[in-house]
Amino acid sequence: MKYQATILIELKPGILDPQGRAVEGVLQGLGYRAQNVRVGRVLEMELESPSEAEAHRQATEMAKTLANPVMEVYTVEALKERA
Amino acid sequence: MKYQATILIELKPGILDPQGRAVEGVLQGLGYRAQNVRVGRVLEMELESPSEAEAHRQATEMAKTLANPVMEVYTVEALKERA
Repeated sequence: MKYQATILIELKPGILDPQGRAVEGVLQGLGYRAQNVRVGRVLEMELESPSEAEAHRQATEMAKTLANPVMEVYTVEALKERA
Repeated sequence: MKYQATILIELKPGILDPQGRAVEGVLQGLGYRAQNVRVGRVLEMELESPSEAEAHRQATEMAKTLANPVMEVYTVEALKERA
């Protein structure tokens, strides 16, 4: 079966995020009341897998491979079956 | 009230994504059956707003401001009330 996986990779809470700070400055300059803006990566992919549990296991393993374990955390945000 | 908003900004389906291609190559080289890998940005932020509807409206407007309308699509993925 085909699955569509969404993986989020974000900086750990304590790690300084200059890109987030820059975006926060822009948003506040435009009058928005945004605080603690953090910028991370989102990965969307299609997966071929016999079951949803196996697809989730694969997605988690890939997220672990792609994230930097010292500075980042990963989440498998969504997993949907595809037609 | 304080809300935590998650915004996803991704390339439109037709747009070439070299970063996604590179990640796909790495994952396939490691033996994963990942296809059509797309890399985008995720923004997490805290918002001060009188109501959830207003927070959602603000988050959508900010997402629109930060995305490139020619190449990217945005989604307000999640909005949670904070303690």
